Amino acid sequence: MRTILIVGAGRSASSLIQYLLNKSEKENLHLVIGDLSLALAEKKTNNHPNATAISIDIFDKNQRQNAIQKAAIVVSMLPAHLHIEVAKDCLVFKKNLVTASYISDEMQELDVAVKAEGLTFMNEIGLDPGIDHMSAMKVIDEIKGKGGKMILFESFCGGLVAPESDDNLWNYKFTWAPRNVVLAGQGGAAKFIQEGTYKYIPYCNLFRRTEFLDVEGYGRFEGYSNRDSLKYRSVYGLDDVLTLYRGTIRKVGFSKAWNMFVQLGMTDDSYTMENSETMSYRDFVNSFLPYHPTDSVEIKTRLILKIDQDDIMWDKLLELDLFNRHKIVGLKNATPAQILEKILSDSWTLQPDDKDMIVMYHKFGYEIDGEKKQIDSKMVCIGEDQTYTAMAKTVGLPVAMATLLILNGKIKTAGVQRPILKEVYLPILQELEEYGVIFKEQTMSYLGYNPDKNIV
Amino acid sequence: MRTILIVGAGRSASSLIQYLLNKSEKENLHLVIGDLSLALAEKKTNNHPNATAISIDIFDKNQRQNAIQKAAIVVSMLPAHLHIEVAKDCLVFKKNLVTASYISDEMQELDVAVKAEGLTFMNEIGLDPGIDHMSAMKVIDEIKGKGGKMILFESFCGGLVAPESDDNLWNYKFTWAPRNVVLAGQGGAAKFIQEGTYKYIPYCNLFRRTEFLDVEGYGRFEGYSNRDSLKYRSVYGLDDVLTLYRGTIRKVGFSKAWNMFVQLGMTDDSYTMENSETMSYRDFVNSFLPYHPTDSVEIKTRLILKIDQDDIMWDKLLELDLFNRHKIVGLKNATPAQILEKILSDSWTLQPDDKDMIVMYHKFGYEIDGEKKQIDSKMVCIGEDQTYTAMAKTVGLPVAMATLLILNGKIKTAGVQRPILKEVYLPILQELEEYGVIFKEQTMSYLGYNPDKNIV
Repeated sequence: MRTILIVGAGRSASSLIQYLLNKSEKENLHLVIGDLSLALAEKKTNNHPNATAISIDIFDKNQRQNAIQKAAIVVSMLPAHLHIEVAKDCLVFKKNLVTASYISDEMQELDVAVKAEGLTFMNEIGLDPGIDHMSAMKVIDEIKGKGGKMILFESFCGGLVAPESDDNLWNYKFTWAPRNVVLAGQGGAAKFIQEGTYKYIPYCNLFRRTEFLDVEGYGRFEGYSNRDSLKYRSVYGLDDVLTLYRGTIRKVGFSKAWNMFVQLGMTDDSYTMENSETMSYRDFVNSFLPYHPTDSVEIKTRLILKIDQDDIMWDKLLELDLFNRHKIVGLKNATPAQILEKILSDSWTLQPDDKDMIVMYHKFGYEIDGEKKQIDSKMVCIGEDQTYTAMAKTVGLPVAMATLLILNGKIKTAGVQRPILKEVYLPILQELEEYGVIFKEQTMSYLGYNPDKNIV
Repeated sequence: MRTILIVGAGRSASSLIQYLLNKSEKENLHLVIGDLSLALAEKKTNNHPNATAISIDIFDKNQRQNAIQKAAIVVSMLPAHLHIEVAKDCLVFKKNLVTASYISDEMQELDVAVKAEGLTFMNEIGLDPGIDHMSAMKVIDEIKGKGGKMILFESFCGGLVAPESDDNLWNYKFTWAPRNVVLAGQGGAAKFIQEGTYKYIPYCNLFRRTEFLDVEGYGRFEGYSNRDSLKYRSVYGLDDVLTLYRGTIRKVGFSKAWNMFVQLGMTDDSYTMENSETMSYRDFVNSFLPYHPTDSVEIKTRLILKIDQDDIMWDKLLELDLFNRHKIVGLKNATPAQILEKILSDSWTLQPDDKDMIVMYHKFGYEIDGEKKQIDSKMVCIGEDQTYTAMAKTVGLPVAMATLLILNGKIKTAGVQRPILKEVYLPILQELEEYGVIFKEQTMSYLGYNPDKNIV
């Protein structure tokens, strides 16, 4: 039996573990599932004979090294900042490692040592980062392989609620860390490049500069810009590309409504509010409005946000029960962002029968034989239930597949890696299709930013 | 002869030096004016027999201590962060010290030692901070002295261009550090309290939440909120006050127009722009607008800022020559804020004949004998010329007066001080009137935020 150590049994580990257990008989695998909570680890074994649960405190060196030593390969599903100690031990005991997280500077520094040992530390092999890298690099490599020259790359991804569970005015529920949704776009201007010109969008305008995205069978979405559009320019070999843009997908209308929170100052995480524990939702809203002895919080909100009496924006606010005098925040020394997260969680938490949905959309513009062409590549994945969500599937399955490929010697390239090489993305993208993660590609004339062609 | 050492001979030192030189004969004073630039120090002596210029590098301990040792009192007009070394030496050599800067934490830490030596380190005795403290505390002490209870304090201050030199559409020119004007309001939400309710304004809304201020003979001004309205709540003895608000004064319409820069992202100082050295002013604007193959920068600007064809906002942008294709930024690795400062400096630099103007406006609300009343206190000061500006006068004169009062034993309270005591503010406010710095007080019924009474 070959032992796979999985550290961290949180929600993103469900599909990962299920995949490996299903293969355990044929592939001769034994899973050791370690978590600080033994109960959680035990639950994730699903009583499978080829799985053992252990309690592991990642800060306890003995426990950690003991477990790593016995493994054939290690998968870390810990929060991103906790990988590094696991990675260092993997180096000491010469074990391959797989994570779904961004390569940190500390992780990158291990690259020379990892290569010297002939080990593979595969990172960024979840959804985003992960499937985005693989599905993008596949098309980029194909275009370049045919002698094409890349001129545009746009890439969008979003975690949303599935159409059958989409029952609120925002067309949105929290399917992943709510805090990241509330803080999205903060910390500096979004920067990208469009037709050779660098563009910058400040936070206060970010949610008003969206782009429409049509996905057949799922309707119209919108994308707002990520802060880091240029991050993978060199990694993807796109240094000369004229347009490079990465964004987050929402259903149309979400961003315009979200901008109300931004304008009021409700997404600010930089200071704590006075009396946050005892204030009502209504008090919270009123904190961001001018004082008036008689005017209502409602009319002050309408005026400051310029919301007409028949504007759907207003209904979106009402749906959140934002003006309730009786609902109390109940959070001590909370920031506006923390309070907003709490209010939104009342309305946007997935219900037991709700399903989530992942949408990914790439646009590739290129020149070939003197002609400009474009490929749009789209993927929609819908979750099965609250455990095997689309998010858990798309994050966990590529991790599981990469783990098995490394274990079986199919992925050989040594070093601190991300999945941008054919030996990684080809088998994984192909196998993902069996699990319903299918990219539909469409070739067309180059649209770019020419509005005359761009009209839908 | 009693030696006054003045370290730092920048523009705020002009009126200070002039005042002390005029008194030097009668008061038996000798001024030693020290600056890193001997030429600048020499210029400031004005060839007066009672002044000596020296070159002093404030980081050179010997030079510094040598000069301080010989002085009867030390005035530091250095940038705020450089006071501390001078202060420590003053403690060693038992010299009193005067600065116009905010008390830093490091300065505050010296308080016990300064008191133990019976020394006075007087800080925050310029304009703002300085004259604001004194003129506010005078009225607050009077109200309390009569048995009144403070319920509201609002305080506004602005450095503007004098009406006779006010010849642009923004009714504004740079009369002090332009960088501070560009960065004003950044770094977190503005926080204040209105009628007992804490209020917060995010940066993106700051310049849209102004208050009108009428000053007889000078017309209507507006105030936008400072970030630190609650800073002096305890210092002023206003812990129970229901309204506490501090703001910055501009001519009406400035803030609405300034908000255009905020919305576009042009005031951001957190990142550097690509190709900033070679970009034109027009390119700079276009960086904040969506790409389009044919639409002009002008129409994109109008659309994103919703500027109608006959809106004066548009003329304000044109006046700055913001759409010029030929004017080049010429700054390497510059932030948007640095580039905007450069563009504004083209238009907003004081011309040789221009005069500046300081406006200060306090509102005091209080209850006395069961009645609510209000005192408005307003001061306007206009500069003489480019050297003896209103800013140099209002910053420098209180420093000079405090220096002489300490030297003559009229200000006696020991410790790290700010001018909130009668022994300080009474003589200085009185003497300032001789120099045209006059507060006009008006008592009326309490207006507070009652809109029915508030209509002008």
